[in-house]
Amino acid sequence: MEVRNLSSALIAEDAGALLDQALERWTAILGPDHVILDQPSRTAAETATFATCQTIPAILKPGSRDEVQECIRIANRFRIPVYPVSSGKNWGYGSRVPVIGTCVLIDLSRMNHILDFDEKLAYVTVEPGVTQRQLFEFLQARQSRLWMDATGSSPECSLIGNVVERGFGHTPYGDHFAQVCGFEVVLPTGTLMETGFCRFPAAHAGPVYRWGAGPTLEGLFSQSNLGIVTRMTIWLMPAPEHFEAFFFQCNRADQLAPLMEALRPLRMQGILRSTVHIANDYKVLAGIQQYPWQETGGETPLRPELMAQLRTRLKFGAWSGSGGLYGTRGQVAEAKRGIRKALRGSVDRLQFLDDRKLAFASRFAKLYQFLTGWDLSKTIELARPVYGLMKGVPSEQPLAGAYWRKKTVPPANMDPDRDGCGLLWLAPVAPLEGHHAELVAKIATETLLKYGFEPSISMTLITERAVACVISICYDRHEAGQDDQAMTCYQYLRHELTDRGYYSYRLGIQAMAEMNGADGYADLMRVLKNAVDPNGVLAPGRYQAGESGASKAASKAIAKA
Amino acid sequence: MEVRNLSSALIAEDAGALLDQALERWTAILGPDHVILDQPSRTAAETATFATCQTIPAILKPGSRDEVQECIRIANRFRIPVYPVSSGKNWGYGSRVPVIGTCVLIDLSRMNHILDFDEKLAYVTVEPGVTQRQLFEFLQARQSRLWMDATGSSPECSLIGNVVERGFGHTPYGDHFAQVCGFEVVLPTGTLMETGFCRFPAAHAGPVYRWGAGPTLEGLFSQSNLGIVTRMTIWLMPAPEHFEAFFFQCNRADQLAPLMEALRPLRMQGILRSTVHIANDYKVLAGIQQYPWQETGGETPLRPELMAQLRTRLKFGAWSGSGGLYGTRGQVAEAKRGIRKALRGSVDRLQFLDDRKLAFASRFAKLYQFLTGWDLSKTIELARPVYGLMKGVPSEQPLAGAYWRKKTVPPANMDPDRDGCGLLWLAPVAPLEGHHAELVAKIATETLLKYGFEPSISMTLITERAVACVISICYDRHEAGQDDQAMTCYQYLRHELTDRGYYSYRLGIQAMAEMNGADGYADLMRVLKNAVDPNGVLAPGRYQAGESGASKAASKAIAKA
Repeated sequence: MEVRNLSSALIAEDAGALLDQALERWTAILGPDHVILDQPSRTAAETATFATCQTIPAILKPGSRDEVQECIRIANRFRIPVYPVSSGKNWGYGSRVPVIGTCVLIDLSRMNHILDFDEKLAYVTVEPGVTQRQLFEFLQARQSRLWMDATGSSPECSLIGNVVERGFGHTPYGDHFAQVCGFEVVLPTGTLMETGFCRFPAAHAGPVYRWGAGPTLEGLFSQSNLGIVTRMTIWLMPAPEHFEAFFFQCNRADQLAPLMEALRPLRMQGILRSTVHIANDYKVLAGIQQYPWQETGGETPLRPELMAQLRTRLKFGAWSGSGGLYGTRGQVAEAKRGIRKALRGSVDRLQFLDDRKLAFASRFAKLYQFLTGWDLSKTIELARPVYGLMKGVPSEQPLAGAYWRKKTVPPANMDPDRDGCGLLWLAPVAPLEGHHAELVAKIATETLLKYGFEPSISMTLITERAVACVISICYDRHEAGQDDQAMTCYQYLRHELTDRGYYSYRLGIQAMAEMNGADGYADLMRVLKNAVDPNGVLAPGRYQAGESGASKAASKAIAKA
Repeated sequence: MEVRNLSSALIAEDAGALLDQALERWTAILGPDHVILDQPSRTAAETATFATCQTIPAILKPGSRDEVQECIRIANRFRIPVYPVSSGKNWGYGSRVPVIGTCVLIDLSRMNHILDFDEKLAYVTVEPGVTQRQLFEFLQARQSRLWMDATGSSPECSLIGNVVERGFGHTPYGDHFAQVCGFEVVLPTGTLMETGFCRFPAAHAGPVYRWGAGPTLEGLFSQSNLGIVTRMTIWLMPAPEHFEAFFFQCNRADQLAPLMEALRPLRMQGILRSTVHIANDYKVLAGIQQYPWQETGGETPLRPELMAQLRTRLKFGAWSGSGGLYGTRGQVAEAKRGIRKALRGSVDRLQFLDDRKLAFASRFAKLYQFLTGWDLSKTIELARPVYGLMKGVPSEQPLAGAYWRKKTVPPANMDPDRDGCGLLWLAPVAPLEGHHAELVAKIATETLLKYGFEPSISMTLITERAVACVISICYDRHEAGQDDQAMTCYQYLRHELTDRGYYSYRLGIQAMAEMNGADGYADLMRVLKNAVDPNGVLAPGRYQAGESGASKAASKAIAKA
């Protein structure tokens, strides 16, 4: 790797002095309230849901795009690596912690304006600080007929943050990165650019048509360190005339493969138009309660035999799934017929739920159980947040799962980083076929149990052809040795999966070496990074093939200073 | 613009000698049969459907990816600009003609292998020479249950060529660029790379999941001169249980705006899941016959008053539209109800057509007319190719429209370039709202008539939120002065549209200056081009902001040689 201006600058001057000078300029631009230097804030930002050693000497909080540009120009001038986060809630993948060395954090949460909204054309244009909750409340306040797609993380998560990491949700707009356009990006040199038609003056189609004219560049700025996205248009779905959710369960683990085979045609033929989520028993249990310390006598991991007993007692299956049906009453009725027919024989239970039934069931759960044998109160407790997510209502509930192995209950104000929740996520993608899903589940289950963790697995039919499997390694960071054990397990599992051809759709900061390789893509990314970020100041190492010498030198020098 | 190695090479050596040396190497690699130098072939390749002066000193026909790599390496070595085409049928946008100066053509039509096919996961992986007809016949021969999406151009068009230009078709997979993944690309330096998960060894999800891990680069290679796409996976749709087409017409031109307002909710709510095409009277007439030389006494343009008479006589509307309904019988029936309800009052005629009805109607057209008053034989003649396109059957019929102003009938083997068909396409995109569609139609109609051409217009609801309007300037290149007149009209219309905020989704070679601008996107594209193609050898000027000094010098030098 070429070593550029940067290293010579560092040799010539003292790196600490460079940082001091940069901080002086940043403070002049942002004001002292928005340049955070106190140790508790920095330590908090340096803390993820797994062990890290990267450091953050300062946190910058620009309030506008112009200030972001100024911040990055100063970073270039003094060759200080910076690491941008939107809301910083990238739990399980690294939270706010930089990928390598030492970086000044750029926290975009103050940029929280909803810049444009169109009820008819169904879109909203937002800044990176706009959260799921904020958009949800905005739509509610306007009595909008539009639904957002929420991801199953905290309502305080940034919308843009999730899109650029290519997260997913639960509605027909669940593949988030496919439902956006019109990015405004601050490049690593401080230049501003816009994607699609937005680059042309007064282009009407800017917020409604993604591709624009010429090369389409949105992809360049997702899972990337080539720019800071400061604005984005997100498409929203019109509330359907009718919504109905369906829930199903399989009692045996070996029903997964035929289930996937039964679901694929439904997805492919457009009978199912949204993502379908399927969770194994461990995942479901972690959604209901914390680790059963009493039943296990304090032993870990939770053995499959005991898990089977808990399943029977709590009445859920080896696999539990859910999906939403959206459309006219006729369309939904037709989809129900199709689902009933397709899943007959593949599932042990199939239940449909709509607003009316949910309201009724909440009131008459006991009676309902008597009549149908289905323990509805439990189902409702489990179903309500998932049901909401399918209607675009963000929920705090899934986040509680991060406290699975903790011995204290999740606090009202959950913060997995602060509370020592250990969480590592691995998200391999497989073709939507039974044998692939089965093999991924088998590898994950065996590996996690072997290392002493519970194999908490979800499978999402993210498109017509692909399943995104999310495997959680959940532990208590306050337990000695667990950080190491979890990371060892993670790396072993990662290799087991990639050796068999299953690669993750999203990477934690500890896994970005996966981007390396002797292949043409990796080479091209190095060429692009060097061209776009000649000083290597923006998020060094993030989804980046090979660390540039420049960034490495800068990080080390600042760390020493 | 920086002038690099290239110009110094050209100063040092004689450019003609460089070309000769390159040709010698190319011939050694490809064999003399695949290096075309004869004047008729070169002249044919230099001919588009409008006036151009760019030249092509040779045509290379590599037969494999490796040969493409070799070709481009040699181009770099001798600094010869090359211009790749897949099938070269980019009529109306420049055909095979390079954007600027002089380029050696790389014709990829020999690379016509279908490399992979999966009936279950519904995809096909192809090389750039694979045509629409070839894929259609491949699917037929296998008795596949999958449908392709065909664009309304010749069956001999390349699939990849259309995707990289971001063309569109008629089924739910009509937005072609959204339904592909796993590109293999030869970069301008000869390096090979793959996008998405395909870059990882033996990744199962390569052909089924687009985004991969890290920055997503497919967009970089569409409407671009940053690489030559040598392989691509195209997703196919499973044949639905039931298919039905609908056709509608509006008698008055001013019904367009309310029609669009009625259609948007259908598209947005998923009642309509495919592109809907709407054509004005001029477009429909050009689909049925050539210019009415007799009725007009040889005068052009065809005046609106006479057009109105022809409309009445031939029984079609000011606007005629069509779309497809795909799904179970129940889904289609439900969609029909929704469409009937939504279009009531907005259209003067609405007709549904399925295989059974079409077969019946073809046999009993006269009786049907007697019973319903609807002249079905005319409708069938018009409808059959469109009906086929909605089922993924490529058709030659729309191409005949290029012969509109010719005084001889289209030959069996149509070739608009060869036959002097004048054709310029302009394709502005607007938000899917009545007033936008109306304004674009108004500007186009007034401008074309003013310049003496027929305003042939189609409006495609390409997504839930956007309309792609295709405006054809159709003329006879053999008529003196028409080339100039058409180009003047084109440039005037382009400015009229962009001044009002309507930009084209796709550009002809004569319009690529539109990519210029002082904006950040244009700057970034220059940086990327220089980084990826340091010698400026690949398709100089193609969708490129600013011509690099290097390319300009090279083109000029070769032209002189």
